[in-house]
Amino acid sequence: MSDQSTEAEQDRDAREDEAYTLSQKDISAILYAVEIDDAAKLTELMEPLHAADIADLLEQISGYDRSRLIRLYDREFDGEILSELDESIREEVIAILTPQVLAEAVRDMDSDDVVDLVEDLDDTQQAAVLDALEDSDRVAVQQALSYPEYSAGRLMQREVVMAPEHWTVGQAIDYLRATPEEELPDQFYHVIMIDPRLHPIGNVTLGKLMRTKRATRLIDIMEDTFKVFTATQPEADVAYAFNQYHLISAPVVDDEGRLIGVITIDDAMSVLDEEHEEDILRLAGVGEGSLSDRVMETTKQRLPWLAVNLVTAIAASMVISQFEAAIAQLVALAVLMPIVASMGGNAGTQSLTVAVRAIATRDLTGANVWRVIRREVLVGLVNGIIFAVIMGIVGVVWFGSPSLGYVIAAAMVINLVVAGLAGTAIPVILERVGVDPALASGAFVTTVTDVVGFFAFLGLAAAVLL
Amino acid sequence: MSDQSTEAEQDRDAREDEAYTLSQKDISAILYAVEIDDAAKLTELMEPLHAADIADLLEQISGYDRSRLIRLYDREFDGEILSELDESIREEVIAILTPQVLAEAVRDMDSDDVVDLVEDLDDTQQAAVLDALEDSDRVAVQQALSYPEYSAGRLMQREVVMAPEHWTVGQAIDYLRATPEEELPDQFYHVIMIDPRLHPIGNVTLGKLMRTKRATRLIDIMEDTFKVFTATQPEADVAYAFNQYHLISAPVVDDEGRLIGVITIDDAMSVLDEEHEEDILRLAGVGEGSLSDRVMETTKQRLPWLAVNLVTAIAASMVISQFEAAIAQLVALAVLMPIVASMGGNAGTQSLTVAVRAIATRDLTGANVWRVIRREVLVGLVNGIIFAVIMGIVGVVWFGSPSLGYVIAAAMVINLVVAGLAGTAIPVILERVGVDPALASGAFVTTVTDVVGFFAFLGLAAAVLL
Repeated sequence: MSDQSTEAEQDRDAREDEAYTLSQKDISAILYAVEIDDAAKLTELMEPLHAADIADLLEQISGYDRSRLIRLYDREFDGEILSELDESIREEVIAILTPQVLAEAVRDMDSDDVVDLVEDLDDTQQAAVLDALEDSDRVAVQQALSYPEYSAGRLMQREVVMAPEHWTVGQAIDYLRATPEEELPDQFYHVIMIDPRLHPIGNVTLGKLMRTKRATRLIDIMEDTFKVFTATQPEADVAYAFNQYHLISAPVVDDEGRLIGVITIDDAMSVLDEEHEEDILRLAGVGEGSLSDRVMETTKQRLPWLAVNLVTAIAASMVISQFEAAIAQLVALAVLMPIVASMGGNAGTQSLTVAVRAIATRDLTGANVWRVIRREVLVGLVNGIIFAVIMGIVGVVWFGSPSLGYVIAAAMVINLVVAGLAGTAIPVILERVGVDPALASGAFVTTVTDVVGFFAFLGLAAAVLL
Repeated sequence: MSDQSTEAEQDRDAREDEAYTLSQKDISAILYAVEIDDAAKLTELMEPLHAADIADLLEQISGYDRSRLIRLYDREFDGEILSELDESIREEVIAILTPQVLAEAVRDMDSDDVVDLVEDLDDTQQAAVLDALEDSDRVAVQQALSYPEYSAGRLMQREVVMAPEHWTVGQAIDYLRATPEEELPDQFYHVIMIDPRLHPIGNVTLGKLMRTKRATRLIDIMEDTFKVFTATQPEADVAYAFNQYHLISAPVVDDEGRLIGVITIDDAMSVLDEEHEEDILRLAGVGEGSLSDRVMETTKQRLPWLAVNLVTAIAASMVISQFEAAIAQLVALAVLMPIVASMGGNAGTQSLTVAVRAIATRDLTGANVWRVIRREVLVGLVNGIIFAVIMGIVGVVWFGSPSLGYVIAAAMVINLVVAGLAGTAIPVILERVGVDPALASGAFVTTVTDVVGFFAFLGLAAAVLL
């Protein structure tokens, strides 16, 4: 038995080594090099690491180790590491870097990465980074910053590969070969075809371009699926479309429909990832926080939701206080009442999570909202009946009172039906009035299930038992 | 005021029209065409829609409309729609399609899409789809199915573009132009370089290939970042690496390290999306469900978590029942006790959600676990003190008893500290012993905060007040 588990563990460790570039061992070795102030050793250990892994490393070590590591590694510091860093750590790191190193680091970054880097910095740091850029890059970054936050304009890169619609394959290839490296994006997958007014009309993939005869017209080998975004469109729409239509890259246009940039799938993937993160954290009432935030920041992020919950809990207590006399007569009520409320709260959370997710993925729409509400209510009813029977029996066995069993059973059914209804209807209504359902649904649904749970149970008990 | 809101609504509608290909109006028009049995009109309306949107449409309408629509649209039915459909609906749709239409639909799909399609079907349907394939495709699909579920082998496509490491740019381009279309993948972004033993050694992007002189050796224009996956590696690792290292495509090798397929970013993006979905639903105790499941399926998915919660709630009730005498003496205790438990439950959920996410994104590791636990406990302490003061005052004002205020304040601090500790430590421990923390943490943490909450409040009250 112990052999087996050891083998399974080894398997697991081996698998993890394969998947993670950064192992616990690497981290220890790096921290040791920092401790003995061995810059050569540190550089040697950091050399094989990807910028994303270095960023993870910086996030995971303590603030003290972080600042010592950066000072020791200073000269080698790459701009890409900054892009990959979590916001809260990023500001700290930028503050530690010398101006020269910072300038060096940002100078070779793509414009969209610089935008992503500077948009969350405070004004002094933003100015420092912008000053480090060449004039044309600075203008590009400033222009991108003029688009609203979380818009396609902030997400796009300005380096675009385009070709007039009347070109042939041969013309496009010759153009690509003649264009100097620095005018092309680092990575590109499509040539975007434009009409004379600079409006994008279609995509040609590089694979097709390479495999097609030189005389063929580009227009004849265009992709079927083609989506265009405007610079002011929310990045959430962009991420949705990339995911829904399996896009690899897509052009961005200005208000006149002219091509001004391109968004690639890796940017869309990051947005999707952030959206998910946000949804999951908001559902739990955690706000924007990250693991590397400090105690006071984290406390501040968590406090509002706990305050809302306190109001909710006090409202529920007020319902209970209406039945003080009943409880004083029959203390069993106090013992059993949290069960009904807790079951309702959980069933409500189930329904609301499904609804919030379905709204986020655009699967819950006007076309099926009534069917979904009906289903959730019926699910509440069936589960309500099942747990009513169980709790009825528990009530009888525990307290020897069949009527106490009936009361808790009836309250259970009522609360689970209400939970299904509230859990679906509340997020839908919040979305309609323009409030993020992930953020606010939980408090509303819990209030409903607590109040209904206590009221149904204690009210029925007062009417039937006393 | 009403003008403003109308304008805002119009803005919102316009934006939604831009983002969604499928509008509420489209759905109504399509359902009307189905109702009047107008196949020509239906085909005309469906023609401009992307397969992913048609799949969404089928998911959102009722079962009755769905089967009528499919029968009317039958001949035009595209394999890609099946790929995009939700599992539960997919089986239903396949059962409605005639064998000829089904055969036609799957025949022009990529091998990885067919795998994705058949892996969840029951045996009869799977056989029907496999029979429809050509021999070579069927062998490919069956081979893919021999890899474990949720592995890189299931995710990859077998069509690969490769070149020997000693080739020049010119040789690679000539090879690409000479290869017949059907042997190449639909979309590809890299040429994978291999050594004589078929081991992949690097990637060359098509953009670079196209822009480089014919005489240059491929090995000199390889990408810096290159990741190789083995066929048996979990797809979650693949998705993580694509996201972490901004990969676009990556080779898959067998146990001997030989190149057998390639995974592209759109597949990785789908996996990432599913992983998130699973995490968020598991955190809420909803299991694998989807919006299109029926009442009984949904009930069954939700029931286990509610059953666990019932056990938890009964455990908490048993704590309360130990203090029946105290409650009988002072009913205010029954009124106030849910507040302490509820605040603890919420604070615990906050901590555990952050921990579960950080484990999933591999940001919470051995390197920082103690620092994170320490932070969560301190956050619990600070928030505990803040809400202790508030509740102490509420206790005094509401019930006119300073000592009741002290008791509830002390219980609040204790429970919020415990919530921070349990909310972080429990998911970390579950992950270490190989249990998915997203699935099981909630029940454990809530049990701890309920039991500690009731015990601390009622216990202190019994000791101090009575």
